[in-house]
Amino acid sequence: MSEPIPSSTTSSETSSSVILRPRQSQWPAISMEDALKIVVETAQPIISKSVPANLVRPGMVLYEPVIAKNPIPPARTSIKDGYAVIASDGIGDREVITVTTAGSITTLKVTPGTCARVSTGAMIPAGADAVVQVEDTELIKHNNIEEQVIRILKPPKENQDIREIGSDVSIGQILLEKRCILGSAEIGIIAASGQRFIEIYRKPKVCVMSTGNELIDWTAEETPEGKIRDTNRPQLLALLNVHGFKTIDGGIVGDTREQLIQSIKVAFKFSNVIVMSGGVSMGEKDLVKSVLKDDFGFTIHFGRVFMKPGLPSTFATGTYENNDLRYIFAVPGNPVSAWVACQLFAIPALRKLGGYQNCFQTEIKVRLAEQIRLDLRPEYRRAWLSTTDNSDKESTISDNENIPLAFCTSHNQLSSFILSTRGANLLLKLPSKTESQQFLKSGDIVSALVIGQL
Amino acid sequence: MSEPIPSSTTSSETSSSVILRPRQSQWPAISMEDALKIVVETAQPIISKSVPANLVRPGMVLYEPVIAKNPIPPARTSIKDGYAVIASDGIGDREVITVTTAGSITTLKVTPGTCARVSTGAMIPAGADAVVQVEDTELIKHNNIEEQVIRILKPPKENQDIREIGSDVSIGQILLEKRCILGSAEIGIIAASGQRFIEIYRKPKVCVMSTGNELIDWTAEETPEGKIRDTNRPQLLALLNVHGFKTIDGGIVGDTREQLIQSIKVAFKFSNVIVMSGGVSMGEKDLVKSVLKDDFGFTIHFGRVFMKPGLPSTFATGTYENNDLRYIFAVPGNPVSAWVACQLFAIPALRKLGGYQNCFQTEIKVRLAEQIRLDLRPEYRRAWLSTTDNSDKESTISDNENIPLAFCTSHNQLSSFILSTRGANLLLKLPSKTESQQFLKSGDIVSALVIGQL
Repeated sequence: MSEPIPSSTTSSETSSSVILRPRQSQWPAISMEDALKIVVETAQPIISKSVPANLVRPGMVLYEPVIAKNPIPPARTSIKDGYAVIASDGIGDREVITVTTAGSITTLKVTPGTCARVSTGAMIPAGADAVVQVEDTELIKHNNIEEQVIRILKPPKENQDIREIGSDVSIGQILLEKRCILGSAEIGIIAASGQRFIEIYRKPKVCVMSTGNELIDWTAEETPEGKIRDTNRPQLLALLNVHGFKTIDGGIVGDTREQLIQSIKVAFKFSNVIVMSGGVSMGEKDLVKSVLKDDFGFTIHFGRVFMKPGLPSTFATGTYENNDLRYIFAVPGNPVSAWVACQLFAIPALRKLGGYQNCFQTEIKVRLAEQIRLDLRPEYRRAWLSTTDNSDKESTISDNENIPLAFCTSHNQLSSFILSTRGANLLLKLPSKTESQQFLKSGDIVSALVIGQL
Repeated sequence: MSEPIPSSTTSSETSSSVILRPRQSQWPAISMEDALKIVVETAQPIISKSVPANLVRPGMVLYEPVIAKNPIPPARTSIKDGYAVIASDGIGDREVITVTTAGSITTLKVTPGTCARVSTGAMIPAGADAVVQVEDTELIKHNNIEEQVIRILKPPKENQDIREIGSDVSIGQILLEKRCILGSAEIGIIAASGQRFIEIYRKPKVCVMSTGNELIDWTAEETPEGKIRDTNRPQLLALLNVHGFKTIDGGIVGDTREQLIQSIKVAFKFSNVIVMSGGVSMGEKDLVKSVLKDDFGFTIHFGRVFMKPGLPSTFATGTYENNDLRYIFAVPGNPVSAWVACQLFAIPALRKLGGYQNCFQTEIKVRLAEQIRLDLRPEYRRAWLSTTDNSDKESTISDNENIPLAFCTSHNQLSSFILSTRGANLLLKLPSKTESQQFLKSGDIVSALVIGQL
């Protein structure tokens, strides 16, 4: 057996270096705590832009507070359908001297013994200081067309069912603070503010690429021998979109130094942030860290994190062609690791870049629905929140049962097992196993990151 | 004072009927429970459509299961960077006869005493039945280019670190069930399935209109006297968009029968569902129910619901021009009522129409951060979930403290007070007050609907 080694690799650079490769990772596995601290301290919000108020969309983040240009309500208006009266007149019959409905204007004045019919949101005529709802009145006299006299059945209190000018919002009041994340409610408030332009944080654009000679595009009709479909790109593009970030599809990149360099350069033309999967482990084709360090002169903030899944997760920054800081999240190629690592590292950084005040996922406490064997590494296990309603059995449930149950998506938690992400809206934060604690029991309470709609 | 009543109303039809109007609502206020039951029983999923797999987006709902066209993995592959060996060879020196990396193919066979260098995801050559990770090996001999002999330091177990063909997913396996809501994880799974077309539920399109003579478009430069900005349309359009529904802007509609009829007819050309705000209360301009009933011959399933805010919430259905059922949610004009009623009634119905299995918002238990005075009506109070982390004080917290705190957005809970929606991601479900229970205390536990990102 002295024949030369047949090799299916063709790139001389990797073949020549394989005998020199370290047999243990050069990268210390830092703690999750340190890794997350590095990520959010390094990421700095970019810049702001002005958008016309009518193009404001959910998920945008305010760069400046929104201030009221108008008082709300802009006039004294009725809270009810009824009659504007003088409160001190008390109960009894009132002549109906005018009518105002929402949007109409009246110049008539309510005087003692008279009233004005008003509808919800209508201006209150001068003189009146209370509204009596129609349910508390009776029609006494009419001319076959209009009401002439009505009877007040309940004594009104001063200011009853009247909204004063500016009682909800005064001119100049801060309606929404800087860094507020806009949802439908806040968009309604912006509409009410009278502001025509809103200053928001510019969100980062993210380029997503998959590395690996084994990959074919997932839209291919057939899978050739030795190839697998690239599932990371569609998955990560969708994940970033769900979080409101614009994405660029960086395609599949082969496992050569030249292809990696070229693809990263192209990505930097369009985005400051790259999320790439694959090429960060111990294999001889795992060139990403070396390319970032040696070819781009980037700082590798970490090359491994002591967590599961996603141990070889890598975070690097540097400048390229201009002074803007570029961010690279290189996550493992296994689909589960890629998905979890993108959630844990890239999403908080992107939120920070986009001006979010809280970068991290919300944590809630959940009860385990089953026993879990702990790993040496702290584990982020995919799970879903039970929506079973306990309200029927309130007499028997303990306080503990008010804490929602969480079910693991799958017993197979291998990082290659893509089905373990299915349906997950939680990542359980499981501690490392210790001598004294190898398992968590069913019913134990753990923290969980909310990663999807509950 | 015998002069004719000056009136700012111009439509004779409304003036002539005002003396005949009922002074109490004709509509019984039905319970929330009944109202929600009616809504989801009436709403029926529409139809399906086929989309190319690469155009599948988060929020779509599967009409048919997704089935695997390929096994995963498609070949025996390595879980680690290391060496493919014959397990029964045990520890000791092995000749390195070939190399496979992810995506490469080899036809050489591993025989006793030999091994193949493999990287993560690479095909396992025939003959080998275990992988030893590189960390558990030593390089013994090389020819300055390639490894020739390595030493196995730990005895391998059969099948160690090898993924068998189809071990994750077999051909024909159901990967995603009918009615699954697609997120980024599920989009990754569809990419892995090899399917090229996916059958999904067609989502309803919703037309949103605001009724009221007092309204001017919210983009107006100034607010004329007697007018207010229409905040409901931008708010409700955004709310429906956040929930993934396509919307059509139906504009502002004046308070006349003719304008209402015309606007509803136009809306029906483009959508089967209308969410309209205003015109459902007791005012003389509140014509919506009458138009739907008398002019369109629609069934008014309910015209009032015993809840707060949103008492006059109205739900009607009927057919128009073809046999398709049309759905109308007429919500009160006050911005808070409109927002809450749209969440409670329109969103579940739209989810049902769109094929969602769970139409309703997820309910969680929360602890009140403050005392709340109960109302006669069951109340849906806007609140937000505290994200304060309790993990530092685990020794002192009781089980109860694992239940998250909820803060009300505002003490002013008037339905006109738009700021009370600000930041809300919960609707607290408060019970009606009773003789014995007028308040809920700080620390009490209540159910809350999750209405936004936690």
